[in-house]
Amino acid sequence: MKQILVKKNILKNNDNIAMKNKKFLDSKGIYTINLLGSPGSGKTSLLEEMIEETDKEINMAVIEGDLYTDKDAKRIESHNIDVVQVNTGGACHLEASMITDALKHINIDNLDFLVIENVGNLVCPASYDLSEDIKITVMSVTEGNDKPLKYPAMFQKSSVVVLNKMDMIELTDFDLDQFYKNISLLNGDTEIFEVSCRTKEGVNELCKYLKEEIKRKKDNGVG
Amino acid sequence: MKQILVKKNILKNNDNIAMKNKKFLDSKGIYTINLLGSPGSGKTSLLEEMIEETDKEINMAVIEGDLYTDKDAKRIESHNIDVVQVNTGGACHLEASMITDALKHINIDNLDFLVIENVGNLVCPASYDLSEDIKITVMSVTEGNDKPLKYPAMFQKSSVVVLNKMDMIELTDFDLDQFYKNISLLNGDTEIFEVSCRTKEGVNELCKYLKEEIKRKKDNGVG
Repeated sequence: MKQILVKKNILKNNDNIAMKNKKFLDSKGIYTINLLGSPGSGKTSLLEEMIEETDKEINMAVIEGDLYTDKDAKRIESHNIDVVQVNTGGACHLEASMITDALKHINIDNLDFLVIENVGNLVCPASYDLSEDIKITVMSVTEGNDKPLKYPAMFQKSSVVVLNKMDMIELTDFDLDQFYKNISLLNGDTEIFEVSCRTKEGVNELCKYLKEEIKRKKDNGVG
Repeated sequence: MKQILVKKNILKNNDNIAMKNKKFLDSKGIYTINLLGSPGSGKTSLLEEMIEETDKEINMAVIEGDLYTDKDAKRIESHNIDVVQVNTGGACHLEASMITDALKHINIDNLDFLVIENVGNLVCPASYDLSEDIKITVMSVTEGNDKPLKYPAMFQKSSVVVLNKMDMIELTDFDLDQFYKNISLLNGDTEIFEVSCRTKEGVNELCKYLKEEIKRKKDNGVG
């Protein structure tokens, strides 16, 4: 009997393409992040704050994933950042082949930092490597502190978790201690940044961390 | 050349199973809703408020979808409601065959109202009919008013949209007019309920609507 494991093949094929992209990005010393999170967790707002905070000292480009619209790409473009919109046509995640295509439209020369903003979804995008150096998951305190244990794959695979909308925490029953415990249960190496895009709290610390990683990759050639 | 359209077949197969479940539920006069929304939009909290509000005047059962945990099912069980946990093992949506299995564990006699709480995800569950009378999407004001246009399938297919966390709206830049316009663009027949599970605002109106639908189905046999 022949057995066809479709899912495994799709993922393996994705990983092969991602590896090729990664080699290319490594050769250019471009530090790449895969920005993940639920719809409305604040991925695009965070990205806007990061652009403002680093204020042109980093040469940055953005690949925006969305089902159909270019709303987020337009927000990023208004900051005079090189941005490519990828519309998945309803698919729930980005795949590495979409990044291959998007890279053709980005001016790679002198680029330091590539941000891939994934489709808003805390489940499916976790399975697809996009050639990133690290995954960053954004979640907001309004989502509740039970989310890491409920959607473990995303948090297990994220090197950085950004806890957003900290300015609203007093209005919620979000248990910060439990959140830290659960994240540490899933991945003991995760860096957590408490942020509010509204008050700008914590954005500076996150940018400092990223600037160091970007510099390290530029200096060493590989992230 | 033979072509295998896997996705279409999966969905068609799902629809066939859903139709069988629906016939069974219709024959018993059980009004069924598919409760959808992002992680942290407040689906389980809303369900808890609905249970409190209807306070045993409706004979209700719940099927709880989750990737791995039984956290939400435990919350519902604490209200002395018949609940079945379905763990998808990482899959991003419930399918009709899971409902067939779950129904075997529910006491159907005298049941008026079946709530299926789907996996937290604003994309994938929209494609899978679960034998429900209506889909209800819960979104919170903290997610931002752009979400209906960014995730249109879910909102197009929902007869009811619950706008949750209204007590927090003053802390956000949520544009209520734009939200109503966009929902009406996607589906002119959608009923919108503005709710806060924290202050209980609007829960009564939603329950009144549902009680009428439940009664209508009980009286007519079919919803």
